[in-house]
Amino acid sequence: PIMPERLTLYTAKSCPFAHRVEIALAEAKADFKTYEIQDLRNKPQWYIDKVNPASKVPAIAYGGPDVPLDQPSPESLKLTESLILVELVADLFPSSNLLPTDPILRAKSRYFTEVVQSKLVPAWIGAIFSGGPLEPLYAALEAVQALLPADKPYALGDAYSAADVTVTPFLARMEVALKNDTGTFKEGEGIKAAEIIFFSERFARLARYLEALKARESFKTFNTDYITEKYRFWVAERTASHH
Amino acid sequence: PIMPERLTLYTAKSCPFAHRVEIALAEAKADFKTYEIQDLRNKPQWYIDKVNPASKVPAIAYGGPDVPLDQPSPESLKLTESLILVELVADLFPSSNLLPTDPILRAKSRYFTEVVQSKLVPAWIGAIFSGGPLEPLYAALEAVQALLPADKPYALGDAYSAADVTVTPFLARMEVALKNDTGTFKEGEGIKAAEIIFFSERFARLARYLEALKARESFKTFNTDYITEKYRFWVAERTASHH
Ligand SMILES: [Ca+2]
Repeated sequence: PIMPERLTLYTAKSCPFAHRVEIALAEAKADFKTYEIQDLRNKPQWYIDKVNPASKVPAIAYGGPDVPLDQPSPESLKLTESLILVELVADLFPSSNLLPTDPILRAKSRYFTEVVQSKLVPAWIGAIFSGGPLEPLYAALEAVQALLPADKPYALGDAYSAADVTVTPFLARMEVALKNDTGTFKEGEGIKAAEIIFFSERFARLARYLEALKARESFKTFNTDYITEKYRFWVAERTASHH
Repeated sequence: PIMPERLTLYTAKSCPFAHRVEIALAEAKADFKTYEIQDLRNKPQWYIDKVNPASKVPAIAYGGPDVPLDQPSPESLKLTESLILVELVADLFPSSNLLPTDPILRAKSRYFTEVVQSKLVPAWIGAIFSGGPLEPLYAALEAVQALLPADKPYALGDAYSAADVTVTPFLARMEVALKNDTGTFKEGEGIKAAEIIFFSERFARLARYLEALKARESFKTFNTDYITEKYRFWVAERTASHH
């Protein structure tokens, strides 16, 4: 049995990649501290110097002495990349059951995540933040939906797993963005997309899946108002800079 | 203890992604069969229909009845994506020690692979096959080299791991391409790059690492002549089609 050491998560509420690790740690009922980076486009210099030179969240500081979170010790190990951190949480806390023990089910969880990462994430960024079209988002959502079992709640069946962790932040933020019509798409296009995705037969299975994901205790800290406000601000800023 | 079922690897000698899984299975001393796809640009229809609709190698057929390899059974499970298959092999054959049991070392192995996948692979494709410059390749090789321990043979130290598996096919093919001056770069540029990478102080640590990787028993099936011939053919074809 592993005795996990001191663990600090450097995160930002608006960031879906960081949210993956927050959910995994909550599912694992891990004992950890959180440091919130307030402005993602203007990170403190100590964060870049002492935590992640790539200047991205999430990051984990693992082990080392008890220090103020904005004065990270060189003795703690710094680890990055959301998918690697989710697997780390699964490995550190086997009782979380985030990864099943069966090798084939583990491969299925990783394949689901690969589809999320290689199809949904770029389509999501494109449609909501980068002025791209909505069609690739529908195609990616169909690819994710096609992997879901018809009559079991989660990606792998009855058991919640890392696969579900990795998709949750993107589906949840997509819902907020579309229902509030907040994105780089034309005014009204978000609402229309929300109707297609959340209220039509085409995506009925996916919409049901998202409800199951949002019902998890580990999701309860998600702050819809905060995300709405942040996204409005970013989209307004981007629109301004493109004039 | 897991009793692995019947396992067939669909592969192609020229493909570095498929080579990863061949190495992992050899390291695991797994009992498996191999089906070689001869022409990657013209795969048999049964492969696309019954093994991988994405029409890529590698793929594994797992379980199911004993059938001719070109008549795959619907009862076997079809699994794809080289990195997922390497982790599957590590999980199916724990005695291979391809992934250490320590969660932190597992995260380090995955981080090394992430750098290979996100930096080295695109730079390698760009420099050798897509007519891109060589500088991004040097930068990617430096990023990989920076992760190597100074005085231990492998990515994680004394123990060979999945991290080493995932980089080997790319470094080995790069050596063949550059030393033979076979690539989309200008004539003579490959030889010059080979001198920088294999005979200068700048990449001394990386060159030593590649020698350790190539010394593994699991690498012995690598056929330099075959790769040289295939690469000459592809590059000639590409050059012709760009005139
Ligand atoms: Ca990836």
